[in-house]
Amino acid sequence: MTPEEFRRHGKQVVDWIADYLAGIETHPVLSQVKPGEIRQALPASPPERGEPFESVLSDLGRILLPGITHWQHPSFFAYFPSNASGPAILGDLLSSGLGVQGMLWVTSPACTELETVVVDWLAELIGLPERFRTDAAGGGVIQDSASSACLVALLAALHRASGGRVAAEGIDRRYTVYVTSQTHSSLEKAARIAGLGAAGVRVVDVDPRTLAMDPSHLRRLLAEDVAADAVPAMVCATVGTTSTTAVDPVPAIGQACREHGVWLHVDAAYAGVAAICPELRWLNDGVAEYADSYATNPHKWLLTTFDCGVLWTADRAPLVGALSILPEYLRNAATSSGSVVDYRDWQVPLGRRFRALKLWSVIRWYGAEGLREHIRKGVALAAELAEQVGTDPGFELHEQHPLGLVCFRPLWPGLDAAAADRATLRLMELLNASGSMYLTHTKIADRVVLRLAVGAAATERRHVEQAWAQIRWERQALAATLP
Amino acid sequence: MTPEEFRRHGKQVVDWIADYLAGIETHPVLSQVKPGEIRQALPASPPERGEPFESVLSDLGRILLPGITHWQHPSFFAYFPSNASGPAILGDLLSSGLGVQGMLWVTSPACTELETVVVDWLAELIGLPERFRTDAAGGGVIQDSASSACLVALLAALHRASGGRVAAEGIDRRYTVYVTSQTHSSLEKAARIAGLGAAGVRVVDVDPRTLAMDPSHLRRLLAEDVAADAVPAMVCATVGTTSTTAVDPVPAIGQACREHGVWLHVDAAYAGVAAICPELRWLNDGVAEYADSYATNPHKWLLTTFDCGVLWTADRAPLVGALSILPEYLRNAATSSGSVVDYRDWQVPLGRRFRALKLWSVIRWYGAEGLREHIRKGVALAAELAEQVGTDPGFELHEQHPLGLVCFRPLWPGLDAAAADRATLRLMELLNASGSMYLTHTKIADRVVLRLAVGAAATERRHVEQAWAQIRWERQALAATLP
Ligand SMILES: Cc1ncc(COP(=O)(O)O)c(C=O)c1O
Ligand SMILES: Cc1ncc(COP(=O)(O)O)c(C=O)c1O
Repeated sequence: MTPEEFRRHGKQVVDWIADYLAGIETHPVLSQVKPGEIRQALPASPPERGEPFESVLSDLGRILLPGITHWQHPSFFAYFPSNASGPAILGDLLSSGLGVQGMLWVTSPACTELETVVVDWLAELIGLPERFRTDAAGGGVIQDSASSACLVALLAALHRASGGRVAAEGIDRRYTVYVTSQTHSSLEKAARIAGLGAAGVRVVDVDPRTLAMDPSHLRRLLAEDVAADAVPAMVCATVGTTSTTAVDPVPAIGQACREHGVWLHVDAAYAGVAAICPELRWLNDGVAEYADSYATNPHKWLLTTFDCGVLWTADRAPLVGALSILPEYLRNAATSSGSVVDYRDWQVPLGRRFRALKLWSVIRWYGAEGLREHIRKGVALAAELAEQVGTDPGFELHEQHPLGLVCFRPLWPGLDAAAADRATLRLMELLNASGSMYLTHTKIADRVVLRLAVGAAATERRHVEQAWAQIRWERQALAATLP
Repeated sequence: MTPEEFRRHGKQVVDWIADYLAGIETHPVLSQVKPGEIRQALPASPPERGEPFESVLSDLGRILLPGITHWQHPSFFAYFPSNASGPAILGDLLSSGLGVQGMLWVTSPACTELETVVVDWLAELIGLPERFRTDAAGGGVIQDSASSACLVALLAALHRASGGRVAAEGIDRRYTVYVTSQTHSSLEKAARIAGLGAAGVRVVDVDPRTLAMDPSHLRRLLAEDVAADAVPAMVCATVGTTSTTAVDPVPAIGQACREHGVWLHVDAAYAGVAAICPELRWLNDGVAEYADSYATNPHKWLLTTFDCGVLWTADRAPLVGALSILPEYLRNAATSSGSVVDYRDWQVPLGRRFRALKLWSVIRWYGAEGLREHIRKGVALAAELAEQVGTDPGFELHEQHPLGLVCFRPLWPGLDAAAADRATLRLMELLNASGSMYLTHTKIADRVVLRLAVGAAATERRHVEQAWAQIRWERQALAATLP
């Protein structure tokens, strides 16, 4: 494709996206296709001859669009939001257009240095300590996801705990990692990948009401394990759990970690970016004093199109120690000088995209002010909804909702717990099948609970109000059909 | 940013990229900035107020562009190419614009099903066997990189070798992995990440002339290890090594793997896509019969903007077994039905971009024909160059060059090996500092050798001729200054 062809088709695509975003509410939020339907509509074999770009666009609209679940729809309330935004899309487009691969500083100095600058910016915005800056011993890096961030944090922790021995000799079964039942599954996945297995993962109790980690139980487990000759390698505290946005008590957890010399990773994948608002800065209490690493995802709630997860560490040496191997073909004067960062040594993959461009575009277009406004809108709408749910006799509100997530249980008088849970799931299916919203569920104290996460960039009050009205109405309609 | 603002700025960005691509030859290939220069030119703190998008574009041109090493420049001959192309950029733009996150089938069925279709297309194009198709027990998946692909292949191999025990109990030090000195460093990195450590990695001899794995030495190592109670988990054969594009003898290696029940991973990160040409189909000899997994990167030589690495496996069960954990909040009817693929279980991260769109756009725009033409152009230009190097008395050609890479050593009569190597590196620095090309080096038999990789989408005969003329000229000029 020549630059002039690109210019022409590029503008077609920009128009396509602008039209898509302007008309997004005309689509059902959750795709209503059946398994295999999209695949069957596509040719089984690739074309022998090239086709005009218009065919791609027309098949996109005709065949693929019905198979899209619209994450940017204002009535997308499932999981956590995965915000996209104009400046992020354009920053990412610039990244694709430049087509640079930033594995080493030398393979595009601007790719590395802009990344260092924007992660320092974000650290400042959410109040992370000086020691997480690249000018100190630490530094930040953009990863594809919080899952990868916790994996590399764990590898750094194992490197430190073993004095570098695991890189040479491999792991042994003495190393342990601490999570709770509310910790994201990516932590267990990381432990498995790193060779610890599920057996190396200790599950610390949570407070049954707040679902936050019980630091006294953590202390007990650490002491027991050390006494039994285990080597505690990492504790993961979560700020904003996936299920209910519970906030683990980082200061008390950090104190226990410090006493035992254990690496503290703080997983603030969803909630961390909210600390950009001074009134939510408390989310990061204890991080400055105690955390060895910290991760949050601008690709969730900070308007930066997936993928963009940021990991900071207070000490980059064990991270690089765990992940660096320098073959001859990658040697270069800048790397040998020790005066540059080569981010390939901070991640699993070798190659890397210029992802800093999208975060840079987002922060510049919105400014700190605009980003705060976005977070505050989600928090306010969630608080209004929680208020309404809390006062409705047909529902039970799960009390904790400091952020954009509201958890609640529809009540089904006369049904036992199992039947009520089935009715709740049935209600959720009906709502999602209607096409006018998408929400998901979790379990709290073994009961099915609905999660409604406000925070898509396009969501306004009317979308939340509409969803709430429909939820109430559908609950009544469904209740009427039950025995 | 509203859809209408996006429409306006989107067209500015498209124009910016079209102009950049049309004028790419006006830039020095390798960025000439010093460490810290870009960073110092950027504000240390984020803006409080939002800024117009035009400021982003103007800073991109003014501050960042001098810090860019231009991978899409026609005189980029370093490492391996990292092709971008118009349709790939636009496919990726559509992915950003839709902003869907395809961790589960249900979170966008089209994201999963189009991926299945395009990896099946690519399997057909490069002649991979039926058992790598999703309709059989296997399947393909888009990863960010070949490094991640080999990591997840290793995790699947360990899962199979241990009968699933490592996921539960963790790894132990009996598991071994087999590579050569020419295997990409990502294999050792994967072994370290998976907890094997460097100690679990066995280095099989290579044929000193071809640098391909010696299968008889592999057999000997396997037999010795088994006798010593080790558990060989995976052998990695490389088709197109990073240093010199050596091709390991997959049939003989595969036979040894089969006898010992060891997982065979074929890393064809660079070269695999070349098998799209019937005359290069031999590259994949033995893969159909023996490989358990196979990886190649459309983001290297197949016009698909980074990141796009494809991994296929003949049996997805151990892969999913190693990587799947299903928390309550991700449960859904489609997953429970077992009738869909959830690609989150085939990779390290949870979240995923709609990367299939770019590969789909590329295959449709170019067609099989156009893709073959691109590969053939690179192969032909490299062959012409090799011919010239081979007949020039000032250079020694490294004989193997079936693909786009030419390796050669400038000769420095009168210098001993160490001094000659220094002169070669100095020559490379001078060439790269000129701004008119970028090439890198490797070591063969402990001697520094220059690598010139042809394959950027924009490269024409004149660029290779120009580079060769300059290399000859600079060698002579430098030789004249030496004692
Ligand atoms: C607390 C928490 N950690 C980690 C993750 C994983 O995120 P990612 O998709 O970036 O790996 C999530 C996803 O929702 C999360 O909520
Ligand atoms: C043979 C081989 N394998 C793996 C890789 C790693 O590629 P990636 O950046 O996709 O991880 C390379 C990179 O050049 C390679 O040449």
